[in-house]
Amino acid sequence: MLLMPRWDEHSPLPHYVQLYETIKQEISSGQLAVGSRLPSIRKLADLLAISTTPVELAYQQLIAEGFIESKPKRGYYVQHLPEPYMRLGEEKRETNAASDHLLWSGRRYRYDFHVSKNDFRVFPFRTWRRLFQRVLHPDSKELLFYGDPQGELGLRQEIARYLYHFRGVKCSPEQIVVGAEQHLLLSFLAQILKSYATGIGVENPGYPLVSSTFRQRGYDVVPIALEEDGLSVEELYKHDVQLAYVSPSHQYPQGMMLPIGKRLQLLEWAEKVDGFVIEDDYDGEFRYQGRPIPSLQGLLPDSRVIYLGGFSQSLAPALCINYMVLPAILLDDFRRFYWETLFEQSSSPLHQQTLQLFMQEGHWERHVRKMRNIYRRKHDRLVASIQDHFQERGHIIGRGAGFHLLLRVDSPKPEAALLQEAKDAGIRIASAAYTWHVPTERKEFIFGFGGIDIDDIDPGIASLHQVWFS
Amino acid sequence: MLLMPRWDEHSPLPHYVQLYETIKQEISSGQLAVGSRLPSIRKLADLLAISTTPVELAYQQLIAEGFIESKPKRGYYVQHLPEPYMRLGEEKRETNAASDHLLWSGRRYRYDFHVSKNDFRVFPFRTWRRLFQRVLHPDSKELLFYGDPQGELGLRQEIARYLYHFRGVKCSPEQIVVGAEQHLLLSFLAQILKSYATGIGVENPGYPLVSSTFRQRGYDVVPIALEEDGLSVEELYKHDVQLAYVSPSHQYPQGMMLPIGKRLQLLEWAEKVDGFVIEDDYDGEFRYQGRPIPSLQGLLPDSRVIYLGGFSQSLAPALCINYMVLPAILLDDFRRFYWETLFEQSSSPLHQQTLQLFMQEGHWERHVRKMRNIYRRKHDRLVASIQDHFQERGHIIGRGAGFHLLLRVDSPKPEAALLQEAKDAGIRIASAAYTWHVPTERKEFIFGFGGIDIDDIDPGIASLHQVWFS
Repeated sequence: MLLMPRWDEHSPLPHYVQLYETIKQEISSGQLAVGSRLPSIRKLADLLAISTTPVELAYQQLIAEGFIESKPKRGYYVQHLPEPYMRLGEEKRETNAASDHLLWSGRRYRYDFHVSKNDFRVFPFRTWRRLFQRVLHPDSKELLFYGDPQGELGLRQEIARYLYHFRGVKCSPEQIVVGAEQHLLLSFLAQILKSYATGIGVENPGYPLVSSTFRQRGYDVVPIALEEDGLSVEELYKHDVQLAYVSPSHQYPQGMMLPIGKRLQLLEWAEKVDGFVIEDDYDGEFRYQGRPIPSLQGLLPDSRVIYLGGFSQSLAPALCINYMVLPAILLDDFRRFYWETLFEQSSSPLHQQTLQLFMQEGHWERHVRKMRNIYRRKHDRLVASIQDHFQERGHIIGRGAGFHLLLRVDSPKPEAALLQEAKDAGIRIASAAYTWHVPTERKEFIFGFGGIDIDDIDPGIASLHQVWFS
Repeated sequence: MLLMPRWDEHSPLPHYVQLYETIKQEISSGQLAVGSRLPSIRKLADLLAISTTPVELAYQQLIAEGFIESKPKRGYYVQHLPEPYMRLGEEKRETNAASDHLLWSGRRYRYDFHVSKNDFRVFPFRTWRRLFQRVLHPDSKELLFYGDPQGELGLRQEIARYLYHFRGVKCSPEQIVVGAEQHLLLSFLAQILKSYATGIGVENPGYPLVSSTFRQRGYDVVPIALEEDGLSVEELYKHDVQLAYVSPSHQYPQGMMLPIGKRLQLLEWAEKVDGFVIEDDYDGEFRYQGRPIPSLQGLLPDSRVIYLGGFSQSLAPALCINYMVLPAILLDDFRRFYWETLFEQSSSPLHQQTLQLFMQEGHWERHVRKMRNIYRRKHDRLVASIQDHFQERGHIIGRGAGFHLLLRVDSPKPEAALLQEAKDAGIRIASAAYTWHVPTERKEFIFGFGGIDIDDIDPGIASLHQVWFS
């Protein structure tokens, strides 16, 4: 029998969509078995105390998509799911680290350590709404047109100013390229760099999006092993690569910081091979012990570094504002690429303008400070709870920064079993396996602490230890 | 001496940005010659009756970017512009059709026949702001997270319903992929279709973005000549291409409509070569004589057609919401591509949700009807004015639909001279040359009528005829 749909009365989604998604979720998760019979429209409407229309709409949609079938005079029955859909379900369950974004339809976890969740309760709703009202106004209706293909100039000026003061990045607004999404910016990069490079060395383990994007664009992607203090520059020299991707402030996912010596070696390498370093500074502002580490980009003047940044982790992914900072020598190539393509700006000028005002009025710096304090407290709580409950059975890797840490677990159980046990207990964690170029079982798990309520951290860790070791 | 900057008191841009952009514009357009001296900060501040701070900020920025230099004790002087920037300026002047989007810094035209301008005065500001307030709310804070990589389900359902009723497109929400920008969706497509195709036939003349995107992804791009009634299907058979790009409702830019016979031939061709037709329906709703032509996609069940649509022309480009409808047989490939890449959704879930509510509450259909009437009146006015003033000296091509028409001019002057004369008279039109794979001088010009005030159309055409033929 169908479970009660999760109503969210404040949800902008109409009833029939919520109902549709609940049922679809029940079916794909197997909770509603193939062949089982759904309640009649009338019955379900009564049960939920709503009119029959939304129920009918939901059923029609499910029939259209082949989830259920209507047998005349007999009712509605769950269909066998099409192959691709099942596979999608499977894969989603596995790669729940980076990709389980479908919050509406995705199952709710009691304790959610999702790696890229933010604490949206502290999003500056009122300020943002006020500024958006100013931007979306008949008097500035030009903003409804296509934006600057490189990003709104005013925003790029604010970003340049901020990066200089807080990340030590040295650039002019002309060097900044704004885009809605990182894969898109990386695709631009792969296109622009074609005349400079055929191969790219990437951190192993590391952030998979970079490898996949450059591989799709025909580059050799060479996994470079990490040493205790980060990527091995010697290794880079051994391969025919002219690009290197690193996350020097806080390696993803291992969390080590690239020391000054290696930073200089890396810049020297780029000079020697006429290549470029791609610096991903995804959480550079968020260091909880001592001062933030200045960027690699600003270490030497005119360095051959492409800097990647964005506002997803510190503000909200839904604004779809990311950017890259190009070395001056690549600006000409970027412009040629633009004129050969004539792509449009993908990041909404309305959000860009709102963010620009948000930064100009000083809200942004305050917000980052606030988030840093919140995340620091969560980080400290998570570290303490793990040490408390796991003691010598758990080894913490990469503490002190960002939004996640890594836990290596000393257990005889296979990794898959540990993941399943966590899932069954309503605890969302991810295996770090997806960050390895050749996934191997290491029993290392990624714990994101950005989204979870601070008071849920200790109970969550306690019950995880309980299910794993009792 | 510096011209008075164009102040826009309602602009969300601060004074120093507007000032910076004006000066930059004067310099790149040559109105401020190399070596000429700018007024002192004090002087300019007085002249504009503002404090010295914004002037100083603007000057500092211009120095940083190398537009001007500060000579101690002597003042600020215009520098020689760096090569790439000059080239950018040059090219922008030439390809002003698709790409001259920098409204803030771009020169204002007295009569603006920009091809992709909309009439933003009729944008539903109040409704949209109200709905956005509902979406950006603490109670639905999950919307701040990453959206569904394929697009918000609720919006895809609304789009599917709309397309079925108004464009005769037959699809389920599962077949719709939402993205911020067309180049991005076409890149996805180029990646997904790699296992099906090596070459693509494109309309010549036609929309350049498709050619450039597929060429960058390694496809052979074969220009296919247009006949009186559109793309020649016989030509397609002669080449080793498995993809064909067409704009069947209203060919861009020539404006002919692909007749039913050719539509069936095209679908048959796709079956025969196991290929696909890419249907660009960029202005399908906007037909001013008789009923809209139903889409090619819906002509036959399960046809091998990829349908492209979006909300830029009918609502606003700044929302960054475009989409494609994939044939069911490509869904598996799309999902595999997604799982190999793990890209994020590029179109802001906040805008998507707002649009979904806009459609659910019936505003969208009303808005399209309203826009169609407005654009019809402008279309008719433009046709009448041209016939009136140009008579046998101008030949109108592709009337009756969309947002533009083509004018072939019978004049002894070279095309470049005609463009310059129009520009000097403050009239923005574009040469159709950029739509030809081998640009040739044809003295055909694209007149967009979407953005211009209806009462400016006749004076604009009158003065254009005046400067060209007196």
